[in-house]
Amino acid sequence: MKQMGWGFKNIDVICFTHYHADHISGLPGLLLTIGNSDRREPVVLMGPPGLARVYDGLKTICPELPFDVIIDEIEPWDNMEVGIFNISACRLNHKIPCYGYRIDVKRAGKFNVEKAKALNIPMKLWSILQKQESVEYEGKIYTSDMVLGDERKGLRVSYITDSRPVDGIPNFIQGSDLFICEGMYGEENKLQKAKEYKHMLYSEAGMLASRGNVKEMWLTHFSPSMPFPQEFIGNARKYFRNTHVGTDRKNVTLLFED
Amino acid sequence: MKQMGWGFKNIDVICFTHYHADHISGLPGLLLTIGNSDRREPVVLMGPPGLARVYDGLKTICPELPFDVIIDEIEPWDNMEVGIFNISACRLNHKIPCYGYRIDVKRAGKFNVEKAKALNIPMKLWSILQKQESVEYEGKIYTSDMVLGDERKGLRVSYITDSRPVDGIPNFIQGSDLFICEGMYGEENKLQKAKEYKHMLYSEAGMLASRGNVKEMWLTHFSPSMPFPQEFIGNARKYFRNTHVGTDRKNVTLLFED
Repeated sequence: MKQMGWGFKNIDVICFTHYHADHISGLPGLLLTIGNSDRREPVVLMGPPGLARVYDGLKTICPELPFDVIIDEIEPWDNMEVGIFNISACRLNHKIPCYGYRIDVKRAGKFNVEKAKALNIPMKLWSILQKQESVEYEGKIYTSDMVLGDERKGLRVSYITDSRPVDGIPNFIQGSDLFICEGMYGEENKLQKAKEYKHMLYSEAGMLASRGNVKEMWLTHFSPSMPFPQEFIGNARKYFRNTHVGTDRKNVTLLFED
Repeated sequence: MKQMGWGFKNIDVICFTHYHADHISGLPGLLLTIGNSDRREPVVLMGPPGLARVYDGLKTICPELPFDVIIDEIEPWDNMEVGIFNISACRLNHKIPCYGYRIDVKRAGKFNVEKAKALNIPMKLWSILQKQESVEYEGKIYTSDMVLGDERKGLRVSYITDSRPVDGIPNFIQGSDLFICEGMYGEENKLQKAKEYKHMLYSEAGMLASRGNVKEMWLTHFSPSMPFPQEFIGNARKYFRNTHVGTDRKNVTLLFED
């Protein structure tokens, strides 16, 4: 993040999949860096039950932060609204309780100028109603549904690691614009290892992406036994063509359709 | 360390100066990496009192290591022998209890061939005695002092961070081949800040290096407010000429004299 120049001040939420060290040991340093960025608003940490206990241990080395930390031990059926983001979790199958995440950015319907004119809605209110807010003006209440068309397709990003394939995943990630999935083992003959350590083969990730009708998949979380993750990408592409290998600082800007 | 290709299996001891997050948050990840390197021998963690409590908090995210961790809360007058290394600590002046470290590699005296011949010591024992060991052979005990001259100058590396300058430091680091010292602020006009946060100016580090008669000083632990630490190096060199700015992966091989 530092190398990308993104800054740390705007981090509102950190979602944890599970509490193995490679997924949470950076937390104290990250929180201190957020503190150094001058943030004073609270930061929410969310993840499977156990988060309070783990955070309690880690905060021995970051006891004094200049903002509040809110610990949210979520259940998969919880629904979290954070600004424009809608966050959902699903239960995965790893050695310890583990969640996958899906982030949806909803998109309001198109503003219908004819409707607004027909209802005599003052033009100065249009921009407010466009933002899906309602407004009272000269004794009348105007709501956005008066002038907005049907909700349009938004954006969906989903993130699945660490896990064996789970039946619910394709439905959970359905239609994602970007699906980030673990690909611990590229080689097909590592199935026994994948089952033992509760990880996936590239081919299994590819099958999930295909059944989930996602647009693009990035593989991540590669075994150190596999120094060139690109080598086996064919094993995923056999099932899902638009597969790419994740690398540090890989990023993409997702845009609404049309 | 990974980029340098040094491996992790041979790490016997980790010395902590103090328990601020930027000096210890990497511990769980490092211990897990050492575990993945196949190490099964114990690893010693040493540092000021409080280490057991801090380790207890951090191990919530690395509860199962394939080796024992030995926690050694040391006092500055303790003397630690670890293989060929002799480790000493000294009390520094920071916001929380903090130690500096000195590592000495002792060097035995030269092997005296004339003496060995005069004492009729069998040649097959020479290499053992040279290693400062004693040996029993055909009913006689031979000790290394029979054949070794006076101890020769060894190697000394010292490491001081985080701290204000402290009177005892020059004596503690005396004659170091390499002295690594914090240089939080390069600018002379940051003295008030340095006093407030209990850090040093480059010039203060330079004075310590000079009074300590060290061979070479590397500055480290630069304030993020100083994007180009090299810019102010003149302020340290005014007091100690052989000053260099530390950078990631900077390293040197120290050799015994002659």
